[in-house]
Amino acid sequence: MSNAVNRRVVLAARPQGEPKPSDFRLEDAPVPDPGAGEMLCRTIHLSLDPYMRGRMNDGASYADPVPIDGVMEGGTVSRVEASNLDGYAAGDIVVGRGGWQSFHISDGEGMRKVDPSIAPLSTALGVLGMPGMTAYTGLLTLGQPKEGETVAVAAASGAVGSVVGQIAKIKGCRAVGIAGGPEKCAFVTDELGFDACVDHRDPDMAAKLKAACPDGIDVYFENVGGPVLEAVIPLMNMWGRIPVCGMIAHYNDRGPGPGPNMLPMMMMRILVQRLTLRGFIVRDFADQAADFLRDVSGWIREGKIKYREDFIDGLENAPEGLIGLLKGKNFGKLVVRVSDET
Amino acid sequence: MSNAVNRRVVLAARPQGEPKPSDFRLEDAPVPDPGAGEMLCRTIHLSLDPYMRGRMNDGASYADPVPIDGVMEGGTVSRVEASNLDGYAAGDIVVGRGGWQSFHISDGEGMRKVDPSIAPLSTALGVLGMPGMTAYTGLLTLGQPKEGETVAVAAASGAVGSVVGQIAKIKGCRAVGIAGGPEKCAFVTDELGFDACVDHRDPDMAAKLKAACPDGIDVYFENVGGPVLEAVIPLMNMWGRIPVCGMIAHYNDRGPGPGPNMLPMMMMRILVQRLTLRGFIVRDFADQAADFLRDVSGWIREGKIKYREDFIDGLENAPEGLIGLLKGKNFGKLVVRVSDET
Repeated sequence: MSNAVNRRVVLAARPQGEPKPSDFRLEDAPVPDPGAGEMLCRTIHLSLDPYMRGRMNDGASYADPVPIDGVMEGGTVSRVEASNLDGYAAGDIVVGRGGWQSFHISDGEGMRKVDPSIAPLSTALGVLGMPGMTAYTGLLTLGQPKEGETVAVAAASGAVGSVVGQIAKIKGCRAVGIAGGPEKCAFVTDELGFDACVDHRDPDMAAKLKAACPDGIDVYFENVGGPVLEAVIPLMNMWGRIPVCGMIAHYNDRGPGPGPNMLPMMMMRILVQRLTLRGFIVRDFADQAADFLRDVSGWIREGKIKYREDFIDGLENAPEGLIGLLKGKNFGKLVVRVSDET
Repeated sequence: MSNAVNRRVVLAARPQGEPKPSDFRLEDAPVPDPGAGEMLCRTIHLSLDPYMRGRMNDGASYADPVPIDGVMEGGTVSRVEASNLDGYAAGDIVVGRGGWQSFHISDGEGMRKVDPSIAPLSTALGVLGMPGMTAYTGLLTLGQPKEGETVAVAAASGAVGSVVGQIAKIKGCRAVGIAGGPEKCAFVTDELGFDACVDHRDPDMAAKLKAACPDGIDVYFENVGGPVLEAVIPLMNMWGRIPVCGMIAHYNDRGPGPGPNMLPMMMMRILVQRLTLRGFIVRDFADQAADFLRDVSGWIREGKIKYREDFIDGLENAPEGLIGLLKGKNFGKLVVRVSDET
């Protein structure tokens, strides 16, 4: 690797509201050497995910922020180039958290080997990775969908929402998606098999969501917030469940938004309908990893779960990719191709 | 009873916002005769509770609305005056849902005999009745307070809040109350034994609540909404629980209030801190009635639970009583003395 450089994207400035290209900086650094008990990993694919916006902020969240001038964090599929670590050898394919850079050193913590024969490697960042497991654990453990119930999910063509709705269908539920634009909505119903999909850009979104949920909503898998949540609230059925996994509409917020204040309406609905809301992140359910991989791999093989990926070429284009992701510009799981698989 | 009349308060009009005296109407009617399998009950005490405001509205809630010209609903302690019902005899004291009237007929459904030797009869409407059981079931089943945790509750001098905080103390928690005015706050700390109580009328309420909860809040027993809830949100600890039992600040709302919109902040806190919110009403836990009566009766005998009652004399004063209750004018469990105990 002596002729290679470690290209990386660091956080140049904390965004005020929406991130902009100047909040990131592209750098070249020497490729590091693995020490004893370490391995050198070359990034093949970098995952771009909404949670990354939170890591760019200062202050307490469920993980420490990325420091200024620090390499942006992110999940990666990598090839082991050199290994001084037992159990890993050059040529192995691993998934972990290598960050926005072309090489990284790992001591194996948080790493998992990927079997390239199961599915394309990039799926280890999507349907068979963190987003898929977020959908699986949140829906099944907290949402507890029962046959005949209605499950609604936003960002329904995305990495998490697409899996939520398809698992809901497997469990015998009515699956209703919300997505941005007619092309995504058509994909959600025609390709993914949801029963209905409502365009959140439609000025009549709330009325159309109501029409798409003639028996109300029993499980709302929350990953966006904003107007979709406000349209969902009055439709929630008695004993409904709302697993709260994301708030992409609010990650760029710089404070409370303009009124009216919808919090009292939400709380009244929680009270009267005896709803359960529960926040979670995927690592709360780390012990379900084996179940997840077994079940979802099986469903993919059986054709019951489909997935769509949206590739960006080149690490230097990752900042624009994340900026677009936060605006819903991607169509499917967003992945940066950083280097070749071989 | 031939010389008596059945005095009753009916719903004259559905309130727009705050109820006013003209929304109620006092009527005299003949005292009804009990048929086969029925008994005639004379109301001794009528309970006034915040949920009654909801019953005055039209539209779906967790119970049917009181119809226009219908007798206002409410819990009552009564004396059986005449009985054609097996198991009940004249002179028995019963608790049930007799409504805002001096006599009612019952077939025994929803009725329970009260042992007058345990505590004053009025407690069957308060600390040993629906409000006490609301506190007991909601706090223990949904709040799950653990030793050393902080439990916060508003309306802390009231029928529900006072029991929530005292059970929290019994379970080894720090109990922090929120109440209206210095007199109530002093009662909550000095008489009920809470660790702290914050006056919600204080312009610095949010800062004082934060100071009163140096380790944050693990369980917030929600019965008010409004500014108290907004002050609580940023204090909620990881894995916190919010049983949602009431929204007294919003029962008079006629639509969403002015901004800012605090819903996104709530949802972000749910997400990041993995909070659980769950709405409930006391009848969801009807199977805990025996446990409740046993435990709370015992705690009263041991001096671990104290209670305060606020009496109003005369059924004709019940409307003003409810109007005042919704503004926090009562101090302790609000009970209307309708007739003598003997």
